[in-house]
Amino acid sequence: MAKAMTLLWGAGSPPCWRVMIALEEKNLQGYNQKLLSFDKMEHKSKEVLDINPRGQLPTFKHGNTIVNDSYAVCFYLESKFKSQGNKLIPDSQEEQALMYQRMFEGLTFYDKLNAVIYYDWFVPEGERHESALNRNKEALTTELKLWEGYLQKLGSGSHVAGPSFTLADVVIFPTVAYLFRFGLSAKRYPKLGEYHNLLKDRPSVKASWPPHWLENPEGQDTLKDI
Amino acid sequence: MAKAMTLLWGAGSPPCWRVMIALEEKNLQGYNQKLLSFDKMEHKSKEVLDINPRGQLPTFKHGNTIVNDSYAVCFYLESKFKSQGNKLIPDSQEEQALMYQRMFEGLTFYDKLNAVIYYDWFVPEGERHESALNRNKEALTTELKLWEGYLQKLGSGSHVAGPSFTLADVVIFPTVAYLFRFGLSAKRYPKLGEYHNLLKDRPSVKASWPPHWLENPEGQDTLKDI
Repeated sequence: MAKAMTLLWGAGSPPCWRVMIALEEKNLQGYNQKLLSFDKMEHKSKEVLDINPRGQLPTFKHGNTIVNDSYAVCFYLESKFKSQGNKLIPDSQEEQALMYQRMFEGLTFYDKLNAVIYYDWFVPEGERHESALNRNKEALTTELKLWEGYLQKLGSGSHVAGPSFTLADVVIFPTVAYLFRFGLSAKRYPKLGEYHNLLKDRPSVKASWPPHWLENPEGQDTLKDI
Repeated sequence: MAKAMTLLWGAGSPPCWRVMIALEEKNLQGYNQKLLSFDKMEHKSKEVLDINPRGQLPTFKHGNTIVNDSYAVCFYLESKFKSQGNKLIPDSQEEQALMYQRMFEGLTFYDKLNAVIYYDWFVPEGERHESALNRNKEALTTELKLWEGYLQKLGSGSHVAGPSFTLADVVIFPTVAYLFRFGLSAKRYPKLGEYHNLLKDRPSVKASWPPHWLENPEGQDTLKDI
Protein backbone atom coordinates (compact mmCIF):
# COMPACT_ATOMS: atom_id res chain seq x y z
CA MET A 1 0.00 0.00 0.00
CA ALA A 2 2.87 2.31 0.83
CA LYS A 3 4.02 1.95 -2.78
CA ALA A 4 1.00 3.99 -3.87
CA MET A 5 2.08 6.84 -1.59
CA THR A 6 4.29 9.79 -2.37
CA LEU A 7 5.64 12.25 0.15
CA LEU A 8 7.46 15.41 -0.89
CA TRP A 9 9.20 16.83 2.15
CA GLY A 10 11.76 19.31 3.35
CA ALA A 11 14.44 18.97 6.01
CA GLY A 12 13.92 21.20 9.04
CA SER A 13 10.14 21.08 8.86
CA PRO A 14 8.27 19.81 11.92
CA PRO A 15 5.06 19.35 9.85
CA CYS A 16 6.93 17.01 7.47
CA TRP A 17 8.34 15.13 10.42
CA ARG A 18 4.84 14.58 11.84
CA VAL A 19 3.80 12.85 8.62
CA MET A 20 6.93 10.68 8.56
CA ILE A 21 6.37 9.56 12.17
CA ALA A 22 2.74 8.72 11.41
CA LEU A 23 3.77 6.67 8.33
CA GLU A 24 6.28 4.72 10.43
CA GLU A 25 3.77 4.12 13.21
CA LYS A 26 1.28 2.70 10.71
CA ASN A 27 3.93 0.38 9.23
CA LEU A 28 3.84 2.20 5.92
CA GLN A 29 7.56 2.08 5.20
CA GLY A 30 8.60 1.98 1.56
CA TYR A 31 6.53 4.94 0.38
CA ASN A 32 7.95 7.08 -2.40
CA GLN A 33 9.66 10.10 -1.01
CA LYS A 34 11.62 13.03 -2.25
CA LEU A 35 13.59 15.47 -0.13
CA LEU A 36 13.22 18.99 -1.54
CA SER A 37 15.21 22.07 -0.66
CA PHE A 38 13.48 25.12 0.84
CA ASP A 39 16.65 27.14 0.12
CA LYS A 40 16.38 26.37 -3.59
CA MET A 41 12.63 27.18 -3.42
CA GLU A 42 11.78 23.68 -4.60
CA HIS A 43 8.56 23.83 -2.53
CA LYS A 44 7.35 26.33 -5.14
CA SER A 45 8.23 24.02 -8.05
CA LYS A 46 5.67 22.73 -10.54
CA GLU A 47 6.08 19.23 -9.05
CA VAL A 48 4.74 20.51 -5.72
CA LEU A 49 2.23 23.04 -7.06
CA ASP A 50 0.56 20.35 -9.20
CA ILE A 51 -0.40 18.54 -5.99
CA ASN A 52 -0.40 21.38 -3.48
CA PRO A 53 -1.59 24.80 -4.65
CA ARG A 54 -0.13 26.36 -1.50
CA GLY A 55 3.38 25.34 -2.53
CA GLN A 56 4.17 23.98 0.92
CA LEU A 57 5.73 20.84 2.31
CA PRO A 58 4.63 18.24 3.22
CA THR A 59 2.83 17.38 0.01
CA PHE A 60 1.28 13.94 0.18
CA LYS A 61 -0.56 11.72 -2.23
CA HIS A 62 -2.02 8.25 -1.81
CA GLY A 63 -3.28 6.93 -5.12
CA ASN A 64 -5.53 9.74 -6.32
CA THR A 65 -6.15 11.07 -2.85
CA ILE A 66 -4.29 14.25 -2.00
CA VAL A 67 -3.85 15.31 1.62
CA ASN A 68 -1.24 17.97 2.28
CA ASP A 69 -1.78 19.39 5.74
CA SER A 70 0.22 17.42 8.32
CA TYR A 71 -2.65 17.09 10.80
CA ALA A 72 -4.97 16.04 7.98
CA VAL A 73 -2.50 13.36 6.88
CA CYS A 74 -2.31 12.02 10.44
CA PHE A 75 -6.08 11.74 10.73
CA TYR A 76 -6.36 10.26 7.25
CA LEU A 77 -3.72 7.57 7.85
CA GLU A 78 -5.16 6.57 11.20
CA SER A 79 -8.65 6.30 9.74
CA LYS A 80 -7.57 4.44 6.59
CA PHE A 81 -5.18 2.03 8.33
CA LYS A 82 -6.92 1.71 11.67
CA SER A 83 -5.93 -1.89 12.33
CA GLN A 84 -2.42 -1.64 10.86
CA GLY A 85 0.64 -0.77 12.92
CA ASN A 86 0.10 1.13 16.14
CA LYS A 87 -3.33 2.39 17.14
CA LEU A 88 -2.98 6.17 17.40
CA ILE A 89 -6.43 7.18 18.67
CA PRO A 90 -7.28 5.56 22.03
CA ASP A 91 -10.65 3.84 22.51
CA SER A 92 -11.45 5.57 25.78
CA GLN A 93 -13.49 8.74 25.26
CA GLU A 94 -11.71 10.35 28.16
CA GLU A 95 -8.28 9.75 26.65
CA GLN A 96 -9.57 10.83 23.23
CA ALA A 97 -10.80 14.11 24.66
CA LEU A 98 -7.39 14.92 26.11
CA MET A 99 -5.68 13.80 22.91
CA TYR A 100 -7.79 16.15 20.78
CA GLN A 101 -7.33 19.01 23.21
CA ARG A 102 -3.54 18.65 23.30
CA MET A 103 -3.28 18.15 19.53
CA PHE A 104 -4.87 21.50 18.83
CA GLU A 105 -3.02 23.27 21.60
CA GLY A 106 0.01 21.80 19.84
CA LEU A 107 -0.60 24.19 16.95
CA THR A 108 -0.39 27.16 19.32
CA PHE A 109 2.76 25.69 20.85
CA TYR A 110 4.32 25.35 17.39
CA ASP A 111 3.31 28.91 16.41
CA LYS A 112 4.82 30.37 19.56
CA LEU A 113 8.08 28.52 18.96
CA ASN A 114 8.26 29.78 15.36
CA ALA A 115 7.48 33.34 16.40
CA VAL A 116 10.75 33.31 18.35
CA ILE A 117 13.19 31.17 16.38
CA TYR A 118 12.11 32.41 12.95
CA TYR A 119 11.23 36.00 13.86
CA ASP A 120 13.75 37.47 11.40
CA TRP A 121 12.60 35.11 8.70
CA PHE A 122 8.92 36.01 9.12
CA VAL A 123 9.29 39.76 9.60
CA PRO A 124 10.99 41.92 6.93
CA GLU A 125 13.91 43.97 8.19
CA GLY A 126 12.21 47.37 8.25
CA GLU A 127 9.29 46.02 10.28
CA ARG A 128 11.17 44.35 13.13
CA HIS A 129 10.76 45.56 16.71
CA GLU A 130 12.69 44.47 19.78
CA SER A 131 9.44 44.92 21.75
CA ALA A 132 7.63 42.45 19.50
CA LEU A 133 10.37 39.83 19.74
CA ASN A 134 10.45 40.23 23.53
CA ARG A 135 6.70 39.76 23.66
CA ASN A 136 7.04 36.61 21.55
CA LYS A 137 9.68 35.29 23.95
CA GLU A 138 7.43 35.95 26.92
CA ALA A 139 4.56 34.18 25.16
CA LEU A 140 6.80 31.18 24.49
CA THR A 141 7.89 31.10 28.14
CA THR A 142 4.26 31.12 29.29
CA GLU A 143 3.50 28.36 26.80
CA LEU A 144 6.44 26.23 27.96
CA LYS A 145 5.32 26.52 31.59
CA LEU A 146 1.85 25.39 30.57
CA TRP A 147 3.24 22.23 28.96
CA GLU A 148 5.58 21.59 31.92
CA GLY A 149 2.46 21.69 34.09
CA TYR A 150 0.52 19.36 31.80
CA LEU A 151 3.34 16.79 31.86
CA GLN A 152 3.83 17.20 35.60
CA LYS A 153 0.17 16.44 36.18
CA LEU A 154 0.22 13.32 34.02
CA GLY A 155 3.15 11.92 35.99
CA SER A 156 6.51 10.46 35.13
CA GLY A 157 6.88 8.39 31.97
CA SER A 158 3.59 9.57 30.54
CA HIS A 159 3.03 10.51 26.93
CA VAL A 160 1.76 13.96 26.09
CA ALA A 161 -1.93 13.11 26.40
CA GLY A 162 -1.94 10.16 28.75
CA PRO A 163 -0.49 6.69 29.20
CA SER A 164 -0.34 5.71 25.52
CA PHE A 165 1.43 7.08 22.49
CA THR A 166 -1.22 8.85 20.36
CA LEU A 167 -1.65 11.28 17.49
CA ALA A 168 -0.92 14.02 20.02
CA ASP A 169 2.64 12.70 20.35
CA VAL A 170 2.97 12.38 16.59
CA VAL A 171 2.22 16.07 16.10
CA ILE A 172 3.82 17.53 19.23
CA PHE A 173 7.08 15.61 19.54
CA PRO A 174 8.71 17.41 16.57
CA THR A 175 8.01 20.76 18.26
CA VAL A 176 9.66 19.53 21.45
CA ALA A 177 12.65 18.16 19.56
CA TYR A 178 13.07 21.55 17.85
CA LEU A 179 12.96 23.32 21.21
CA PHE A 180 15.94 21.34 22.43
CA ARG A 181 17.73 21.56 19.08
CA PHE A 182 17.46 25.34 19.47
CA GLY A 183 18.99 25.25 22.91
CA LEU A 184 16.13 25.00 25.42
CA SER A 185 17.40 24.15 28.89
CA ALA A 186 16.24 20.75 30.14
CA LYS A 187 17.24 21.92 33.61
CA ARG A 188 14.73 24.74 33.44
CA TYR A 189 12.08 22.58 31.75
CA PRO A 190 12.69 19.13 33.25
CA LYS A 191 9.35 17.58 32.29
CA LEU A 192 9.77 18.54 28.64
CA GLY A 193 13.31 17.17 28.86
CA GLU A 194 12.00 13.90 30.25
CA TYR A 195 9.39 13.70 27.52
CA HIS A 196 12.04 14.34 24.87
CA ASN A 197 14.14 11.51 26.29
CA LEU A 198 11.16 9.19 26.43
CA LEU A 199 10.49 9.49 22.71
CA LYS A 200 13.75 10.34 20.98
CA ASP A 201 14.71 6.67 20.56
CA ARG A 202 11.25 5.39 19.67
CA PRO A 203 11.66 3.50 16.36
CA SER A 204 9.27 5.74 14.37
CA VAL A 205 11.03 8.85 15.64
CA LYS A 206 14.52 7.50 15.11
CA ALA A 207 13.75 6.32 11.59
CA SER A 208 12.55 9.81 10.65
CA TRP A 209 15.12 11.87 12.58
CA PRO A 210 16.10 14.97 10.52
CA PRO A 211 19.06 13.91 8.36
CA HIS A 212 20.87 17.25 8.75
CA TRP A 213 20.76 16.80 12.53
CA LEU A 214 22.55 13.48 12.14
CA GLU A 215 25.19 15.12 9.96
CA ASN A 216 25.56 17.99 12.38
CA PRO A 217 24.56 16.94 15.90
CA GLU A 218 25.35 20.40 17.27
CA GLY A 219 22.27 22.60 17.58
CA GLN A 220 21.85 26.34 18.10
CA ASP A 221 21.55 28.30 21.32
CA THR A 222 18.71 30.64 20.32
CA LEU A 223 16.52 29.50 23.23
CA LYS A 224 19.16 29.11 25.93
CA ASP A 225 17.82 32.02 28.01
CA ILE A 226 14.14 31.23 27.59
CA MET B 1 -26.81 14.41 28.18
CA ALA B 2 -26.63 18.06 27.20
CA LYS B 3 -27.53 18.92 30.80
CA ALA B 4 -24.07 17.72 31.86
CA MET B 5 -22.46 20.18 29.45
CA THR B 6 -21.36 23.74 30.06
CA LEU B 7 -20.21 26.18 27.40
CA LEU B 8 -18.71 29.54 28.28
CA TRP B 9 -18.65 31.65 25.14
CA GLY B 10 -18.17 35.13 23.76
CA ALA B 11 -20.07 36.98 21.07
CA GLY B 12 -18.04 37.73 17.96
CA SER B 13 -15.90 34.61 18.24
CA PRO B 14 -15.88 32.22 15.27
CA PRO B 15 -14.33 29.44 17.42
CA CYS B 16 -17.28 29.69 19.86
CA TRP B 17 -19.69 29.61 16.95
CA ARG B 18 -18.12 26.38 15.65
CA VAL B 19 -18.82 24.66 18.95
CA MET B 20 -22.41 25.93 19.03
CA ILE B 21 -23.07 24.67 15.49
CA ALA B 22 -21.61 21.26 16.37
CA LEU B 23 -23.79 21.03 19.49
CA GLU B 24 -26.90 21.85 17.44
CA GLU B 25 -25.97 19.33 14.73
CA LYS B 26 -25.59 16.59 17.35
CA ASN B 27 -29.00 17.44 18.87
CA LEU B 28 -27.40 18.58 22.10
CA GLN B 29 -29.67 21.53 22.74
CA GLY B 30 -30.28 22.48 26.35
CA TYR B 31 -26.66 22.59 27.46
CA ASN B 32 -25.71 25.12 30.13
CA GLN B 33 -24.29 28.22 28.57
CA LYS B 34 -23.05 31.58 29.65
CA LEU B 35 -22.28 34.51 27.39
CA LEU B 36 -19.19 36.32 28.64
CA SER B 37 -17.88 39.71 27.58
CA PHE B 38 -14.43 40.05 26.00
CA ASP B 39 -14.65 43.82 26.57
CA LYS B 40 -15.04 43.30 30.30
CA MET B 41 -12.17 40.75 30.18
CA GLU B 42 -14.49 38.05 31.52
CA HIS B 43 -12.52 35.45 29.53
CA LYS B 44 -9.73 36.02 32.06
CA SER B 45 -12.05 35.52 35.05
CA LYS B 46 -11.56 32.79 37.63
CA GLU B 47 -14.63 31.00 36.29
CA VAL B 48 -12.89 30.53 32.94
CA LEU B 49 -9.33 30.04 34.23
CA ASP B 50 -10.48 27.22 36.51
CA ILE B 51 -11.44 25.22 33.41
CA ASN B 52 -9.22 26.77 30.77
CA PRO B 53 -5.71 27.88 31.81
CA ARG B 54 -5.38 29.84 28.56
CA GLY B 55 -8.25 32.13 29.56
CA GLN B 56 -9.89 31.84 26.18
CA LEU B 57 -13.37 31.19 24.88
CA PRO B 58 -14.86 28.73 24.09
CA THR B 59 -14.41 26.92 27.38
CA PHE B 60 -16.29 23.63 27.40
CA LYS B 61 -16.94 20.94 29.95
CA HIS B 62 -18.90 17.70 29.69
CA GLY B 63 -19.15 16.05 33.09
CA ASN B 64 -15.54 15.93 34.21
CA THR B 65 -14.18 16.06 30.70
CA ILE B 66 -12.71 19.40 29.68
CA VAL B 67 -12.20 20.21 26.01
CA ASN B 68 -11.58 23.85 25.18
CA ASP B 69 -10.20 24.10 21.67
CA SER B 70 -13.02 24.46 19.13
CA TYR B 71 -11.65 21.83 16.72
CA ALA B 72 -11.08 19.45 19.64
CA VAL B 73 -14.68 19.94 20.81
CA CYS B 74 -15.94 19.15 17.30
CA PHE B 75 -13.96 15.93 17.10
CA TYR B 76 -14.93 14.98 20.65
CA LEU B 77 -18.66 15.53 20.12
CA GLU B 78 -18.70 13.62 16.83
CA SER B 79 -16.85 10.69 18.38
CA LYS B 80 -18.90 10.63 21.57
CA PHE B 81 -22.30 11.08 19.88
CA LYS B 82 -21.60 9.33 16.61
CA SER B 83 -25.10 8.00 16.09
CA GLN B 84 -26.93 11.03 17.47
CA GLY B 85 -28.07 13.94 15.30
CA ASN B 86 -26.28 14.49 12.02
CA LYS B 87 -23.29 12.41 11.04
CA LEU B 88 -20.45 14.89 10.61
CA ILE B 89 -17.62 12.64 9.38
CA PRO B 90 -18.51 10.87 6.11
CA ASP B 91 -17.93 7.11 5.75
CA SER B 92 -16.13 7.36 2.44
CA GLN B 93 -12.34 7.57 2.88
CA GLU B 94 -12.16 9.83 -0.14
CA GLU B 95 -14.63 12.33 1.34
CA GLN B 96 -12.93 12.05 4.72
CA ALA B 97 -9.57 12.92 3.18
CA LEU B 98 -10.96 16.09 1.63
CA MET B 99 -12.79 16.96 4.83
CA TYR B 100 -9.61 16.71 6.93
CA GLN B 101 -7.62 18.66 4.36
CA ARG B 102 -10.14 21.50 4.20
CA MET B 103 -10.63 21.59 7.98
CA PHE B 104 -6.97 22.29 8.57
CA GLU B 105 -6.69 24.71 5.69
CA GLY B 106 -9.61 26.38 7.44
CA LEU B 107 -7.27 27.40 10.25
CA THR B 108 -5.04 29.22 7.75
CA PHE B 109 -8.13 30.84 6.21
CA TYR B 110 -9.22 32.05 9.65
CA ASP B 111 -5.73 33.36 10.51
CA LYS B 112 -5.51 35.31 7.25
CA LEU B 113 -8.91 36.88 7.88
CA ASN B 114 -7.92 37.92 11.40
CA ALA B 115 -4.60 39.34 10.22
CA VAL B 116 -6.60 41.88 8.22
CA ILE B 117 -9.71 42.68 10.23
CA TYR B 118 -8.01 42.66 13.62
CA TYR B 119 -4.60 44.03 12.57
CA ASP B 120 -4.85 47.03 14.91
CA TRP B 121 -6.01 44.83 17.73
CA PHE B 122 -3.12 42.35 17.35
CA VAL B 123 -0.32 44.85 16.71
CA PRO B 124 0.47 47.60 19.25
CA GLU B 125 0.40 51.12 17.85
CA GLY B 126 4.14 51.74 17.66
CA GLU B 127 4.72 48.50 15.74
CA ARG B 128 2.20 48.93 12.94
CA HIS B 129 3.33 49.15 9.33
CA GLU B 130 1.26 49.95 6.27
CA SER B 131 3.47 47.50 4.35
CA ALA B 132 2.60 44.66 6.74
CA LEU B 133 -1.13 45.34 6.56
CA ASN B 134 -0.95 45.47 2.77
CA ARG B 135 0.88 42.15 2.72
CA ASN B 136 -1.82 40.69 4.95
CA LYS B 137 -4.48 41.96 2.56
CA GLU B 138 -2.70 40.39 -0.39
CA ALA B 139 -2.40 37.11 1.50
CA LEU B 140 -6.13 37.19 2.26
CA THR B 141 -6.92 37.87 -1.40
CA THR B 142 -4.80 34.89 -2.48
CA GLU B 143 -6.53 32.76 0.15
CA LEU B 144 -10.00 33.85 -1.00
CA LYS B 145 -9.18 32.95 -4.59
CA LEU B 146 -8.05 29.52 -3.47
CA TRP B 147 -11.38 28.85 -1.75
CA GLU B 148 -13.32 30.24 -4.73
CA GLY B 149 -11.46 27.69 -6.83
CA TYR B 150 -12.15 24.85 -4.41
CA LEU B 151 -15.88 25.62 -4.40
CA GLN B 152 -15.93 26.11 -8.18
CA LYS B 153 -14.40 22.67 -8.66
CA LEU B 154 -16.91 20.97 -6.35
CA GLY B 155 -19.81 22.43 -8.32
CA SER B 156 -22.94 24.34 -7.48
CA GLY B 157 -24.77 23.56 -4.24
CA SER B 158 -21.85 21.65 -2.80
CA HIS B 159 -20.67 21.90 0.77
CA VAL B 160 -17.11 22.94 1.49
CA ALA B 161 -15.63 19.43 1.30
CA GLY B 162 -18.07 17.59 -0.92
CA PRO B 163 -21.74 16.71 -1.25
CA SER B 164 -22.54 16.43 2.47
CA PHE B 165 -22.40 18.79 5.41
CA THR B 166 -19.38 17.76 7.52
CA LEU B 167 -17.08 18.97 10.29
CA ALA B 168 -15.36 21.05 7.62
CA ASP B 169 -18.52 23.14 7.27
CA VAL B 170 -18.89 23.39 11.04
CA VAL B 171 -15.47 24.96 11.38
CA ILE B 172 -15.28 26.98 8.15
CA PHE B 173 -18.76 28.47 7.86
CA PRO B 174 -18.21 30.96 10.72
CA THR B 175 -15.13 32.31 8.91
CA VAL B 176 -17.16 32.77 5.72
CA ALA B 177 -19.98 34.48 7.61
CA TYR B 178 -17.45 36.88 9.17
CA LEU B 179 -16.03 37.69 5.74
CA PHE B 180 -19.41 38.89 4.54
CA ARG B 181 -20.20 40.59 7.83
CA PHE B 182 -17.01 42.60 7.31
CA GLY B 183 -18.06 43.62 3.83
CA LEU B 184 -16.63 41.05 1.40
CA SER B 185 -18.15 41.44 -2.05
CA ALA B 186 -20.24 38.46 -3.13
CA LYS B 187 -19.97 39.81 -6.67
CA ARG B 188 -16.21 39.43 -6.58
CA TYR B 189 -16.35 36.11 -4.75
CA PRO B 190 -19.53 34.50 -6.10
CA LYS B 191 -18.80 30.93 -5.00
CA LEU B 192 -18.18 31.99 -1.41
CA GLY B 193 -21.38 34.04 -1.65
CA GLU B 194 -23.28 31.00 -2.87
CA TYR B 195 -21.85 28.88 -0.07
CA HIS B 196 -22.82 31.52 2.48
CA ASN B 197 -26.37 31.50 1.15
CA LEU B 198 -26.51 27.71 1.18
CA LEU B 199 -25.78 27.51 4.90
CA LYS B 200 -26.99 30.72 6.50
CA ASP B 201 -30.50 29.36 7.06
CA ARG B 202 -29.48 25.85 8.08
CA PRO B 203 -31.17 25.21 11.46
CA SER B 204 -27.91 24.68 13.40
CA VAL B 205 -26.46 27.88 11.97
CA LYS B 206 -29.60 29.94 12.47
CA ALA B 207 -30.01 28.75 16.06
CA SER B 208 -26.48 29.87 16.87
CA TRP B 209 -26.35 33.08 14.81
CA PRO B 210 -24.39 35.78 16.70
CA PRO B 211 -26.93 37.64 18.86
CA HIS B 212 -25.31 41.05 18.28
CA TRP B 213 -25.70 40.53 14.52
CA LEU B 214 -29.44 40.04 15.04
CA GLU B 215 -29.61 43.24 17.07
CA ASN B 216 -27.58 45.12 14.53
CA PRO B 217 -27.90 43.53 11.07
CA GLU B 218 -25.61 46.15 9.53
CA GLY B 219 -22.01 44.95 9.20
CA GLN B 220 -18.76 46.79 8.53
CA ASP B 221 -17.05 47.55 5.24
CA THR B 222 -13.47 46.66 6.20
CA LEU B 223 -13.17 44.12 3.39
CA LYS B 224 -15.09 45.91 0.66
CA ASP B 225 -12.00 46.42 -1.54
CA ILE B 226 -10.47 42.98 -0.99
